[in-house]
Amino acid sequence: MLEDFKHHIAQDLPFLLDSKILVTVSGGLDSMLLLLLCRQAGLTIRVAHCNFNLRGVESDGDQAFVESYCKLHNIPIYIKSFDTSAYAKIEKTSTQIAARELRYQWFKELSAAEGLDYILTAHHLNDELETFLINLGRGTGVKGLTGIPEINGPVVRPLLPFSRKRIKEYALQEKLAWREDSSNATDNYVRNHLRHHAIPSMVAAQPATLQGLQTTQQHLRQTDKLLAIYTASLRKAYVTTRDGLQVINVSALKKHEEPQAVLYQLLHSYNFTAWSDVYELLDAQSGKQIFSETHRLVKDRDVLLLTENAVAQPTTYTWESGVSKIVGDFGTLRLDTSEIFDSTSRKEIVVDATKLAFPLTIRKWEEGDFFYPFGMKGKKKLSKYLKDEKVSLIAKEHVWLLCNDKDIVWVIGHRADDRFKVVNDTQKMIKFTTI
Amino acid sequence: MLEDFKHHIAQDLPFLLDSKILVTVSGGLDSMLLLLLCRQAGLTIRVAHCNFNLRGVESDGDQAFVESYCKLHNIPIYIKSFDTSAYAKIEKTSTQIAARELRYQWFKELSAAEGLDYILTAHHLNDELETFLINLGRGTGVKGLTGIPEINGPVVRPLLPFSRKRIKEYALQEKLAWREDSSNATDNYVRNHLRHHAIPSMVAAQPATLQGLQTTQQHLRQTDKLLAIYTASLRKAYVTTRDGLQVINVSALKKHEEPQAVLYQLLHSYNFTAWSDVYELLDAQSGKQIFSETHRLVKDRDVLLLTENAVAQPTTYTWESGVSKIVGDFGTLRLDTSEIFDSTSRKEIVVDATKLAFPLTIRKWEEGDFFYPFGMKGKKKLSKYLKDEKVSLIAKEHVWLLCNDKDIVWVIGHRADDRFKVVNDTQKMIKFTTI
Repeated sequence: MLEDFKHHIAQDLPFLLDSKILVTVSGGLDSMLLLLLCRQAGLTIRVAHCNFNLRGVESDGDQAFVESYCKLHNIPIYIKSFDTSAYAKIEKTSTQIAARELRYQWFKELSAAEGLDYILTAHHLNDELETFLINLGRGTGVKGLTGIPEINGPVVRPLLPFSRKRIKEYALQEKLAWREDSSNATDNYVRNHLRHHAIPSMVAAQPATLQGLQTTQQHLRQTDKLLAIYTASLRKAYVTTRDGLQVINVSALKKHEEPQAVLYQLLHSYNFTAWSDVYELLDAQSGKQIFSETHRLVKDRDVLLLTENAVAQPTTYTWESGVSKIVGDFGTLRLDTSEIFDSTSRKEIVVDATKLAFPLTIRKWEEGDFFYPFGMKGKKKLSKYLKDEKVSLIAKEHVWLLCNDKDIVWVIGHRADDRFKVVNDTQKMIKFTTI
Repeated sequence: MLEDFKHHIAQDLPFLLDSKILVTVSGGLDSMLLLLLCRQAGLTIRVAHCNFNLRGVESDGDQAFVESYCKLHNIPIYIKSFDTSAYAKIEKTSTQIAARELRYQWFKELSAAEGLDYILTAHHLNDELETFLINLGRGTGVKGLTGIPEINGPVVRPLLPFSRKRIKEYALQEKLAWREDSSNATDNYVRNHLRHHAIPSMVAAQPATLQGLQTTQQHLRQTDKLLAIYTASLRKAYVTTRDGLQVINVSALKKHEEPQAVLYQLLHSYNFTAWSDVYELLDAQSGKQIFSETHRLVKDRDVLLLTENAVAQPTTYTWESGVSKIVGDFGTLRLDTSEIFDSTSRKEIVVDATKLAFPLTIRKWEEGDFFYPFGMKGKKKLSKYLKDEKVSLIAKEHVWLLCNDKDIVWVIGHRADDRFKVVNDTQKMIKFTTI
């Protein structure tokens, strides 16, 4: 095992040989063995131990155990105590996720502060198979089957090629001591059930299962890289970016032999799950939309628009007299007196000051709104105006109005209202500018 | 279940509704339920039952059972008895593979003879998961994880979306009778161990595993189609076909961002298993080669040559006097008298008949062979000649010689020997032609 470990480092992770390394050690079998191997391989190491305070006296026992091992072997150690439950409560997440976030955050701070190059964790081949089966059971694509990356920024997992069986055999051979984590047997039902029942049964049926997984994941990782290259060219062909939106050209996409497969490639990292609904958007009417946890996909005429889900924001702001600048979800609006009577761009308007009665309001437009477009006779429905201007569905949602009581003064960034314009006998002019 | 089955047929397999269908029925749960559903859905069916005679009286019992069911329900039935063990012995294969070959061969004959359109088999979702795990455990790529095709030529598997659990529940609800196959519990250790132990344990850990598999395989099938499209363009860029060989342009391939991944895509259907060796060929010296069960890949200067593995063939043929044509692994050679003294292509030579002493021989060239190239003074090593002519490594192995005793008359298809050429006082000329 030691020889294979050293060979793996020399072959695949040679940069570890002359780096300062932080080994993360819980005190359990896997991390204690990683620590042992790093020592035996002569790497320059320090240890980090997190006390998550989730199992009372047991947690403290783990800490004492790791501390005394490091003292005995003269390894510098960093220890940090976390109030994991409190953090989980505040962040409204599971203690597992809380522990992970706290852990990695601290590791990164520690690395920066102490000038450490890499953070080593003890994930191994059986962890890979567990993750593979969990993702399989949830429904996933190639990406979700490719496994845990061995090198992920500063985080390196040098035990990935080794099975739990080999790790345990070597630990026993070396008379290594470790702490059994009582939560292994209870936390995370799915993972533990797979670990203790399904995987041993799979290995009993096919003893080479773990090697087979390694081979399979090597092929899948390659395939995934190749797909990424192909997807980049597909993205170039079908997607443009506009004001932070992604715009997918549906009619062009439909000329590809496999439009659904292309759409999956373009969108699979945006957390959509109801893929048959996504595919139906290709032929759906304008306005149909689908939400994922983080994103939103809208059919708009001949394109699909992808945006992040907006966070709820106030939709009306009040502009008191004497205020020169107001900031909101619409951006920033500034008010100045003006010597010039007309505006030079869509980003500003000049109006007759005496026609305004503060406080003004800034609000989102609504169905039923109408205004008197500057330079035109008569009024027009705002919805019709936006349609005629070919404003996209998503851009429409970001149309804000500057209003004087009920009357629209400015469709901000689009068009001024004729009623407030500067006329021959105007005495005082005000300029509004978006910045 | 019946409603879902009918909906699945209408939605995804509507061509079955007005076709003549052969349902293959062993008498076990899955195929009896398929038969029941086809009856209930009103499809036009006939039944085929194979008696493989592998389990003595039990096999005969299965046959009688299926026969009586069909008689009761007035369904036409075809029965065929096979000597599976004898066939397996002759073909040197397992009884499982023998049974499959015999079965499909008969189904296809039957369909042709009776004018049947489709052959239905009872594979279901659990079979998919078994196959998925078997391939995973052996090491595979995307293709090997995409599952059993639902429509594969005339063979259709309408139960693929349904789990064993649903099938059994419906069978019990409908009070369907079936035969338990005692070999299920013993044959094919890996599949049965997965079926009876690993998969139930996976489902216990994650109850939605089978649905997850369905979703995953839908994504993987799409991805696989997309990859096929991309691979076709890669093939166009890097591969040419020459005399039945595929020639892969290594220096062009190396300019791709992921040469190994591309090589895998180009070659994965040719049964190679030692992929790291395959990848090493990209940088290997000329002459290095790798064999799969069916194919061979040779590095030759700046290209990789892919061919089928040659079947051993005789390497020497004897050409008796009076024979005008001889056929062998070298192709076909014809002998004619000639009125013209010189040849017009590499495919023929004209020689002085009196210089030949039958029987001639045709043999493969060997190291150490030399000849007197036509039109040149002096002799030349054949290996040097072939090198100078830039004959590829694989083409070299197909160089044959026409010899007169120990002397080379013709490096067939390449160059005549000067010693046998027609001269001023030649009385009789013979022409050899390759056809």
